Amino acid sequence: MNRPFHRYRSHNCGEPNEALAGEKIRLSGWCHRIRDHGGVLFIDLRDHYGLTQCVVDPDSPAFAQAEKLRSEWVVRLDGEVRKRPAGTENPDMPTGLVEVYVAEIEVLGAAAELPLPVFGDQLYPEDTRLKYRFLDLRREKLHQNIMLRGRIIDSIRTRMKQAGFFEFQTPILTASSPEGARDFLVPSRLHPGKFYALPQAPQQFKQLLMVAGFDRYFQIAPCFRDEDARADRSPGEFYQLDVEMSFVTQEDVFEAMEPVLRGVFEEFSGGRAVTQKFSRIPFREAMLKYGSDKPDLRNPLIIADITEEFAREDVSFKAFKGKTVRAIPAPGAAAQPRSFFDKLNDWARSEGAPGLGYVIFEEESGALIGKGPIAKFIPAEAQAAIGAKAGVKAGDAVFFSAGEETAAAKLAGAARIRIGNELGLSKTDVFEFCWIVDFPMYEWNEEDKKIDFSHNPFSMPQGGMEALENQDPLTILAYQYDIVCNGVELSSGAIRNHRPDIMKKAFEIAGYGEETLIEKFGGMYRAFQYGAPPHGGIAPGVDRIVMLLAGEENLREVTLFPMNQRAEDLLMGAPSEATMKQLRELHIRLNLPEKG
Amino acid sequence: MNRPFHRYRSHNCGEPNEALAGEKIRLSGWCHRIRDHGGVLFIDLRDHYGLTQCVVDPDSPAFAQAEKLRSEWVVRLDGEVRKRPAGTENPDMPTGLVEVYVAEIEVLGAAAELPLPVFGDQLYPEDTRLKYRFLDLRREKLHQNIMLRGRIIDSIRTRMKQAGFFEFQTPILTASSPEGARDFLVPSRLHPGKFYALPQAPQQFKQLLMVAGFDRYFQIAPCFRDEDARADRSPGEFYQLDVEMSFVTQEDVFEAMEPVLRGVFEEFSGGRAVTQKFSRIPFREAMLKYGSDKPDLRNPLIIADITEEFAREDVSFKAFKGKTVRAIPAPGAAAQPRSFFDKLNDWARSEGAPGLGYVIFEEESGALIGKGPIAKFIPAEAQAAIGAKAGVKAGDAVFFSAGEETAAAKLAGAARIRIGNELGLSKTDVFEFCWIVDFPMYEWNEEDKKIDFSHNPFSMPQGGMEALENQDPLTILAYQYDIVCNGVELSSGAIRNHRPDIMKKAFEIAGYGEETLIEKFGGMYRAFQYGAPPHGGIAPGVDRIVMLLAGEENLREVTLFPMNQRAEDLLMGAPSEATMKQLRELHIRLNLPEKG
Repeated sequence: MNRPFHRYRSHNCGEPNEALAGEKIRLSGWCHRIRDHGGVLFIDLRDHYGLTQCVVDPDSPAFAQAEKLRSEWVVRLDGEVRKRPAGTENPDMPTGLVEVYVAEIEVLGAAAELPLPVFGDQLYPEDTRLKYRFLDLRREKLHQNIMLRGRIIDSIRTRMKQAGFFEFQTPILTASSPEGARDFLVPSRLHPGKFYALPQAPQQFKQLLMVAGFDRYFQIAPCFRDEDARADRSPGEFYQLDVEMSFVTQEDVFEAMEPVLRGVFEEFSGGRAVTQKFSRIPFREAMLKYGSDKPDLRNPLIIADITEEFAREDVSFKAFKGKTVRAIPAPGAAAQPRSFFDKLNDWARSEGAPGLGYVIFEEESGALIGKGPIAKFIPAEAQAAIGAKAGVKAGDAVFFSAGEETAAAKLAGAARIRIGNELGLSKTDVFEFCWIVDFPMYEWNEEDKKIDFSHNPFSMPQGGMEALENQDPLTILAYQYDIVCNGVELSSGAIRNHRPDIMKKAFEIAGYGEETLIEKFGGMYRAFQYGAPPHGGIAPGVDRIVMLLAGEENLREVTLFPMNQRAEDLLMGAPSEATMKQLRELHIRLNLPEKG
Repeated sequence: MNRPFHRYRSHNCGEPNEALAGEKIRLSGWCHRIRDHGGVLFIDLRDHYGLTQCVVDPDSPAFAQAEKLRSEWVVRLDGEVRKRPAGTENPDMPTGLVEVYVAEIEVLGAAAELPLPVFGDQLYPEDTRLKYRFLDLRREKLHQNIMLRGRIIDSIRTRMKQAGFFEFQTPILTASSPEGARDFLVPSRLHPGKFYALPQAPQQFKQLLMVAGFDRYFQIAPCFRDEDARADRSPGEFYQLDVEMSFVTQEDVFEAMEPVLRGVFEEFSGGRAVTQKFSRIPFREAMLKYGSDKPDLRNPLIIADITEEFAREDVSFKAFKGKTVRAIPAPGAAAQPRSFFDKLNDWARSEGAPGLGYVIFEEESGALIGKGPIAKFIPAEAQAAIGAKAGVKAGDAVFFSAGEETAAAKLAGAARIRIGNELGLSKTDVFEFCWIVDFPMYEWNEEDKKIDFSHNPFSMPQGGMEALENQDPLTILAYQYDIVCNGVELSSGAIRNHRPDIMKKAFEIAGYGEETLIEKFGGMYRAFQYGAPPHGGIAPGVDRIVMLLAGEENLREVTLFPMNQRAEDLLMGAPSEATMKQLRELHIRLNLPEKG
């Protein structure tokens, strides 16, 4: 067969196999690795699809050319597919049974000396990696992470559509919408002194879509927040699976989202188990049992409230009197050396707590007996009550976190994680999901001595207008929820307050007049006057989902062209200076800080 | 069956049909239209999925409540499905054979008096429509356009993936990349005096993706240009199907894109024919035959060059001497009244031309004889030559456009469109695609008396380095192409110049040094030093595709929340003023024009 080759390739570098043995083929790709074995050159040729071993021996007309090649040169190679000599096969590679005997080489793109190698997995400084991101992205792990990201987004999109959602694009140049973070602003050329803002989230737009009657919205939505960087938050932009539904209750949102999230995680978990039915944990229960509103359920420990037990008259441990006390069980900890307990104590002190008290339970003549520095202040009956609440048995210990309620809960939660990790109790190969529900609508603002919104002012209060009119505001719960996976909050969500009258009342309780609503949320508040349906939604972070599934700890490992921690794009050189003409056209001038 | 209803609906408003007759159902939606027929109220209840006729007669316990309802109130209705009385069915509606007898009504969201009705199709001022976009979007045509847009994007995405492309997200906060239009700038808080830019297109990023080895990229990409608005260009942002491929020739790009575009257009054309094999028309040929590089091939007329014929010594029409002359055939125009010719002449003069000469061909004793004001200056032999080149027969006319070559071509092109329309020759129910190829690499800049890039400086010159070194630059063609549908340019594209040496040479010819490359395209130019593959791509405008398929003339009819012509978002109130604190944080101050 003498069909002429395509200009650049007859096959990609993942295709050559035994079935092609004897055939002449044409490949193009990057010289991944070049080895000289006794005068014979072995070139691992790489493209997006795979790696093929190519051989150039001194008899080949291409040998002189081959000797000039260096790592990461882009070349076209023509040659014949042959089975590899016995003993040199690599059955782990799809192309590992063959090699290509090269007859012709064309250099398509030479490469200068590399600031960052592609072959190998040495660590390189972050700034080098970002400046030469196009090289970093050729490296196997990052290349695969980015492809995984794409597959995850495809899967999310497919599942959302199958669930009856429609995808829409909401504006990126828009108005400031106070979501709590800082806006990125864009000066307007046509309107001197005015600015667009990039959306912190398409929150108002998705609600407007519901008011416009579109029923089930989703978007893989770019969001922009001018916040300082964190490992799990890129400076600048990130993506969320933005979702909103009309004529739904909270439970409908859960029933729509659970199969999508479970499905995506099962598809990409690599066999790791995923929660089948996400439990619904009320906020107060989460704060008690896990000391956190984003509990990591891979950790089996459950905190108990033992305030009553330490309040008993026969318990003489004065440091805990009048305080909330929480018990964190530590199964099997009796077998741990003293240093285990000391280290936890030191850690608690580094967190600003006076320490973590503890009792070790041992069996003596058939009864559980508490041991340890503070055990003697707790009579046997109280010890038994504590042990029962904490659910411990002989050989276990119980740690205590005491203080003002919120502080005690948080310290207990952090201790729970540490103890679970130290004792190796937490599962590692699972994705544990739960919903946190029943967040309080309001909280007491101690600083300003007033009632304030606890989370989202636009969530529907449970009980609606009646609750607002008749109930102690601090006892009102909201239809507001979080979705949590392995201790990572993927998203908040809520059934929205779609009734202008209830909204006005809710704001009034927090001390805000209607003018605040009109000024800050005019578009949405106006829309609600013209027939708004009940609606609610959620917006799980896409980057965080990808991080969890890729097993990465830093967003930059799952983002194509991230900025560095200082919000700089080192590859493209952003941000950069503008010209005087640009500034003039935008009706701004610089206001630079004084040089120090 | 007494299963309790869902809180808001057992069915949507598109579902009730005869199979449900006798069943109690629950619907929620908007009161689309309320009619009082002799004391019986008919409510057309509307949601995203359809419309159901609901009936409340005075015996219903819900009657008093129903009397309070107004257009666009959101309500929940419980009632029984009944077949409509004979003669009142509407077989054109999916729900048209039934109605719902309402027993209970709950108002979910009342509506104030509407600034814009939803029912009916009266025209309303643009600003009212944009300010109350959430009402406008409830109207049937716009609602359907937006849903069509979503389906088209889904279809594009599916087809691109089936064709082996992968989707990626490129940064939105990035560096200025000179694409010819004005950038939107975003002041940096962390880097005083510096600015991000929103991408005019992800051009450099998609090329960097190729250099990073990702092989086949696409993105439904938001793009931002601070340009004044046009009907076919939104102020601010628009979307393109951004595509790039490695190791390809121009023909590979065509072969990848044709099935996608043809498939999408066939899917949504509503039976209108779509070009099966897109023709490739060289730029010069397009300018000659159609007087345009975006020819509307629905128009069958083909322009001919008759410069030679008017240059003949025996032709005495002095006005055309020394000029390029083009002939536009006008089949059957001999039957047109004198006013037809006069109107075209007037039009040409309004375009700044001296007029359109013409000759009408009639048959006299078996020969074609030219008639009309200038026929007498053209002897029979020359007339015959002109008639032959223009492909006319008895009863046809030929119009002439004369002048400097480019001007003559353009006027001929515009005349071709007018003549085709006036004579009713253009097809209306087809989508005619073509590729325009072989654009010149350089052109003569008369103003600066120098050679300049003709289109994209980053396209690969045909013939590569050899052509640059040995050929007259003005004769060099580029691997640069346009895709055109019905006279609308959907996109330019190119095989890129991926070789730094050829790029330097190409810039040198246009009088630019390497420092221009480094300064303006540093990220990409640097990347090309480290092993770049041959690559090319294209970026058809998504909004334009939707406009063509929806048969709309204005982008605002296919965009969810567009800005107005003054780049204002009247719904959200953007752009708006920033606070002093914001400006201080961003290290800018205002520089307002003097009040006039």
